[in-house]
Amino acid sequence: MRPTSALISHGHGVVPEPGPLTRRALRADDVAVRVDWCGVCHSDLHALHSRRPGDPPLVPGHECTGRVAALGTEVTGLAVGDVVAVGNIVDSCGGCAMCRAGQENYCAEFPTLTYGGTDRRDGTPTQGAWAGEIVVRDRFVHPLPAGLDPAAAAPLLCAGVTVWEPLRAAGVGPGSRVAVAGLGGLGHLAVRLAVALGASVTVLTRTADKAGDARALGADDVVVSTDESAMAAVRDRFSLVIDTIAAPHELGPLLRTVALDGTLCSLGFLGPVTVETMDLLLRRKRLTSSGSGGLPSTRELLAFCAEHGVVADVERLPADRIGEALDRLARNDVRYRVVLDMAGISEGRPLAD
Amino acid sequence: MRPTSALISHGHGVVPEPGPLTRRALRADDVAVRVDWCGVCHSDLHALHSRRPGDPPLVPGHECTGRVAALGTEVTGLAVGDVVAVGNIVDSCGGCAMCRAGQENYCAEFPTLTYGGTDRRDGTPTQGAWAGEIVVRDRFVHPLPAGLDPAAAAPLLCAGVTVWEPLRAAGVGPGSRVAVAGLGGLGHLAVRLAVALGASVTVLTRTADKAGDARALGADDVVVSTDESAMAAVRDRFSLVIDTIAAPHELGPLLRTVALDGTLCSLGFLGPVTVETMDLLLRRKRLTSSGSGGLPSTRELLAFCAEHGVVADVERLPADRIGEALDRLARNDVRYRVVLDMAGISEGRPLAD
Repeated sequence: MRPTSALISHGHGVVPEPGPLTRRALRADDVAVRVDWCGVCHSDLHALHSRRPGDPPLVPGHECTGRVAALGTEVTGLAVGDVVAVGNIVDSCGGCAMCRAGQENYCAEFPTLTYGGTDRRDGTPTQGAWAGEIVVRDRFVHPLPAGLDPAAAAPLLCAGVTVWEPLRAAGVGPGSRVAVAGLGGLGHLAVRLAVALGASVTVLTRTADKAGDARALGADDVVVSTDESAMAAVRDRFSLVIDTIAAPHELGPLLRTVALDGTLCSLGFLGPVTVETMDLLLRRKRLTSSGSGGLPSTRELLAFCAEHGVVADVERLPADRIGEALDRLARNDVRYRVVLDMAGISEGRPLAD
Repeated sequence: MRPTSALISHGHGVVPEPGPLTRRALRADDVAVRVDWCGVCHSDLHALHSRRPGDPPLVPGHECTGRVAALGTEVTGLAVGDVVAVGNIVDSCGGCAMCRAGQENYCAEFPTLTYGGTDRRDGTPTQGAWAGEIVVRDRFVHPLPAGLDPAAAAPLLCAGVTVWEPLRAAGVGPGSRVAVAGLGGLGHLAVRLAVALGASVTVLTRTADKAGDARALGADDVVVSTDESAMAAVRDRFSLVIDTIAAPHELGPLLRTVALDGTLCSLGFLGPVTVETMDLLLRRKRLTSSGSGGLPSTRELLAFCAEHGVVADVERLPADRIGEALDRLARNDVRYRVVLDMAGISEGRPLAD
């Protein structure tokens, strides 16, 4: 077994505390990754808020970069010291139609999530990457292309691929008109990636104060979504609207900005949503959703980002400031992703409470 | 002005009665069509049930075939006696992006419906094709290809094009797996057209008694939608599910049969619908809807049907049996479309009450 340290939630509050964690001894196809940077995502916050007294300990974190610390006996193509990345999936069945299609995120047996899942071989709960080390099956460890800053690249592994798959599924390229609703962790990467793909990008935001940021990210236009006349001016306009708004909201106003045969892709995990079929009918619009990405998409995204210089805008915080990071995320006061510097944990130093 | 006869609803009951109707004098780009056959569609029933005392008279009917009776001075490409067809749209603005794209059904100024609309030039209410004659702008009069039985072809103009556009938008062809939910006027044409396009077709039906018909129409498989294990066996299977069920129903069970990047197209005019985003997310499924078709689609459909021998299964009833036709339609007791023989009306004979 491999001892390390981690930020652990013990079920009696939302802020994880530093403590000892044991990783499994390496299997033949395992890779031990010393974590350098790990993003703080809305779904981490959601997981922490969902915890109850008596729940087993939980280590969040599912978009990290680091260096290979040790290799199982049968791992090829990686060497100790390689800079690598791990996302929100650490295993899948490998045999179903979705896995064969490279969409492990939709594995018929459900993919093994980086934390909060169950290891497919030993049945133990998976624990995430807010830790000094993580042990992951080799197929799910991605070499980080040279030229990508590991801190700013970490959010590509979840936020990035989550917006990349709908951009690719919609065939976005030069000439495409894309709108991004909500400018946060996912949204700012959606803008950058769509711009890099050659699209004309509009940001739909509830407040005007992010207009400067939106343009700096490459957006051609910013529309304040509470301004009915501005929204009317972009009616039926976009071939793809990526909705990254996590709070409950009506989809009708966004659907009405979609063009003929275009798509509204909701990424906010909204639960049940109600739409007027007439909003779909008049121009044969599509409503869809998607979640994270498969291995081929992830590798394609990393190569694309290296080629186009796309990374996240990150704030680097020491791991022991996790409480502050979570508070600010809950207030939407992050521009646009916090990445935790896991050095203190990796080095076994005690963290401030 | 051109006197004719029609089946007219006077707002005090659902069954229209025969009576006199006057069509406008021909404009330079008008075509007068002597109606031979006109379908009876659920939307006619809906329009009749929506009538109230005091409403102006209404003549339904929006999928007809007939012969050219007279031509405006500037009409080219048609001759008196030509067999032609008219659908549910008789005009559109012609200048908006949708009209320029050949999607007059989504005209930004709203298309002029064959009945219940308002003529764009003289502001009079439009009256439909349950009549001896109809006068229509030339662009919206389609020559009927040789080889198509005019009675059985009439439903192609609304039911047919309504299922044709989503089949084409989804790129259905050889190898596609298509499901059709509901086997009625739209559904039976959707099966026949999808089969003719080369798809493997499954019919999803609430009752098993239409299985024989489904197979006779060319379906490879029939699934009784109330059989949970049978529905589970087709989970995540179809690239396109065309939902023709007009009664309120849950979309979740149908969405769950859609494959990765596939589409559920709802044609039932269901108003507000609620879906679980998780049903969309797991495999990036799309929900859409569409309504009737544009001029290029309509012409493409008619040519395709002539080439592949596709027409509707029709019951021919004299126009004076409209009450019976509407009763049976309301009971879903039609296999699969009633077309009214308008000869009695065209010839000016009095109809039985």
